[in-house]
Amino acid sequence: MALIVQKYGGTSMGSPERIKSVARRVARYRAQGHEVVVVVSAMSGETNRLIALAKEIQAQPDPRELDVIISTGEQVTIGLLSMALKDIGLDARSYTGTQVKILTDSSHTKARIQHIDESAMRTDLKAGRVVVVAGFQGVDAEGNITTLGRGGSDTTGVALAAALKADECQIYTDVDGVYTTDPRVVPEARRLKTVTFEEMLEMASLGSKVLQIRSVEFAGKYKVKLRVLSSFQEEGEGTLITFEEEDNMEKAIISGIAFNRDEARINVTGVPDKPGIAYQILGPVADANIDVDMIIQNVGIEGHTDFSFTVPRNDYQKALAILEGVQGHIGAKSISGDDKICKVSVVGVGMRSHVGIASTMFRTLAEEGINIQMISTSEIKISVVLDEKYLELAVRVLHKAFSLDQEP
Amino acid sequence: MALIVQKYGGTSMGSPERIKSVARRVARYRAQGHEVVVVVSAMSGETNRLIALAKEIQAQPDPRELDVIISTGEQVTIGLLSMALKDIGLDARSYTGTQVKILTDSSHTKARIQHIDESAMRTDLKAGRVVVVAGFQGVDAEGNITTLGRGGSDTTGVALAAALKADECQIYTDVDGVYTTDPRVVPEARRLKTVTFEEMLEMASLGSKVLQIRSVEFAGKYKVKLRVLSSFQEEGEGTLITFEEEDNMEKAIISGIAFNRDEARINVTGVPDKPGIAYQILGPVADANIDVDMIIQNVGIEGHTDFSFTVPRNDYQKALAILEGVQGHIGAKSISGDDKICKVSVVGVGMRSHVGIASTMFRTLAEEGINIQMISTSEIKISVVLDEKYLELAVRVLHKAFSLDQEP
Repeated sequence: MALIVQKYGGTSMGSPERIKSVARRVARYRAQGHEVVVVVSAMSGETNRLIALAKEIQAQPDPRELDVIISTGEQVTIGLLSMALKDIGLDARSYTGTQVKILTDSSHTKARIQHIDESAMRTDLKAGRVVVVAGFQGVDAEGNITTLGRGGSDTTGVALAAALKADECQIYTDVDGVYTTDPRVVPEARRLKTVTFEEMLEMASLGSKVLQIRSVEFAGKYKVKLRVLSSFQEEGEGTLITFEEEDNMEKAIISGIAFNRDEARINVTGVPDKPGIAYQILGPVADANIDVDMIIQNVGIEGHTDFSFTVPRNDYQKALAILEGVQGHIGAKSISGDDKICKVSVVGVGMRSHVGIASTMFRTLAEEGINIQMISTSEIKISVVLDEKYLELAVRVLHKAFSLDQEP
Repeated sequence: MALIVQKYGGTSMGSPERIKSVARRVARYRAQGHEVVVVVSAMSGETNRLIALAKEIQAQPDPRELDVIISTGEQVTIGLLSMALKDIGLDARSYTGTQVKILTDSSHTKARIQHIDESAMRTDLKAGRVVVVAGFQGVDAEGNITTLGRGGSDTTGVALAAALKADECQIYTDVDGVYTTDPRVVPEARRLKTVTFEEMLEMASLGSKVLQIRSVEFAGKYKVKLRVLSSFQEEGEGTLITFEEEDNMEKAIISGIAFNRDEARINVTGVPDKPGIAYQILGPVADANIDVDMIIQNVGIEGHTDFSFTVPRNDYQKALAILEGVQGHIGAKSISGDDKICKVSVVGVGMRSHVGIASTMFRTLAEEGINIQMISTSEIKISVVLDEKYLELAVRVLHKAFSLDQEP
């Protein structure tokens, strides 16, 4: 018998039929003798509907009052799920963030959880009840309703699991786990049974949108066992996100291939190789609120150097215009770029102790005649920028080169 | 400078535009130096939408969870109105029933208010803020969300006015006050500047649906000055509901003519005039959950008597069938009835000390050739049952006979 926290997103709560289906899944866990705490999001679309309504009243909605309004989305779904559970014979009780209570700071619309009072939930669990908690919301010390920002329900789930010292926190989504790469690109892509916390962070930031990155960080901090599962499949063990080194003894060197085609590359060539030049180039870009991802600066030759970086593809023209505006001031020979690029990364904690990964990656791409435009590395990943037309080919050959289609 | 509680219903909250219009009205009162507490209902239709959603999950929704769900309707409108007030430069703060707190018993979906903590509201008012409170909802001693039943927002308004010892509780509706009778029947009908609490109770129970009867009773108990106003008119003083006898010094004898065409008449003739006969007749009707309104029993002659009563018109056929079923058992000579009737009542506290009212009423009807089928009286009203076809004529001639078209 274990204590399990399950979190269901807006799609899983999207209709009365889906809510009933969630109730049946909870019932199966109860039938196995487990204690279950369920965290729910609002019905899909509801939070956006409420924000739009608020904006009809006030173009820049007052944050305190916006939280009062948007927190109702989850208040409705906790009631509906509790009813669905009672309707199939389980005892259940709903809790708003205020009722639990999930104490946060007072930063409306992006509050941080400070403390969770788990006593009422413990009483209910002991009495055999399923506890249903509103995700995304909390209450500050003065009793004001707060919300945690987008993806906050994942954070609520992890925080409750930490407070209750739950055996596992299950995050139900519309995919059945974390894959070695996108199955739409590589049909042989394999679901990972486990992935480390650090790999998950790299995957999430590289475009695998399975989990909110903040909840993964939170789980890491409190050592909560996280599992990603599909809410649309009856069976399946999903992917377990691990934090202990010992869990990784038999792990493969590389866990997966992440990719991203939402970026564009910008090159600034022939700039003077002197202190402060990186700031002179990137300062105006940052001032325009354009995110910069990869940054590469080559060693200078004869007092000049070349500088490259990537920006979101939507901001490409804007960034180019900004740099052309300051070209004279920074003394660059040329400003150029390309918005038909992609970024492909191999990710794996095993990489730390295996020197051959980079050479395998570069050789594999060379054998297919794929030119590498930029390279960037971290402790557990190697990213390359390629011409966009090579994306599928590169992901497929790398997936095969690292034997990701086979169990380790 | 006065402390005023204003209550706005679902129609007044029905759209962003209407909410902004409410904010402008509140601003006018603030500009005059008054302190204002606003109680709001959910947007019109929202509570019904939420109940329908709940019923898709559970045919008989769990009362505790239903309250969690339907209380969100007012939680949205308090946020929206607070934003609208801030948007035009007023400081405002919203409160749910839990936040105030409005302590109730634990009778979900029909809870009764036990106590209101007015300290937080006082602090806000002192700081120059408009306080916006969710109507219809409260919280029980264990922190569960409760609701007060249909029309509960009126009750919240009156209860807050009582707790804050407000100078006035203004109920904004879609009519601009209480009239001597329905202006659609008598164009000369006149808005009453004042009406007594008892008259209002009689009017409400006789079909004038301006105010929820429970909130009127509540106002009477705590001597809250209630005023009915239109939320669609800029000006107008509405109708004040008074509780002190001194307020009535210059009042007319008769305040208004109420009427109702939703009833049907049933006659049971020739029943034995013996103890228990009324119960034998009405027991089976009550068992079928049919409301009985007027009940008339004539003095018995030669050991037999006739018995008449009225029921809602929708239940007429059902009531008739039930009585025909027990006719033999109760020993009645005949069962008959009529569902083409109406009830017309003259109401007024002044009636107590004026004996001529009944004779004026009966003479006026007789002069028009209108036959009276049943008569029933209370301290402050006389009701007659007439053929439905005479309704408009009877109301018009009585309105004139009691000079209701003229200021008293």
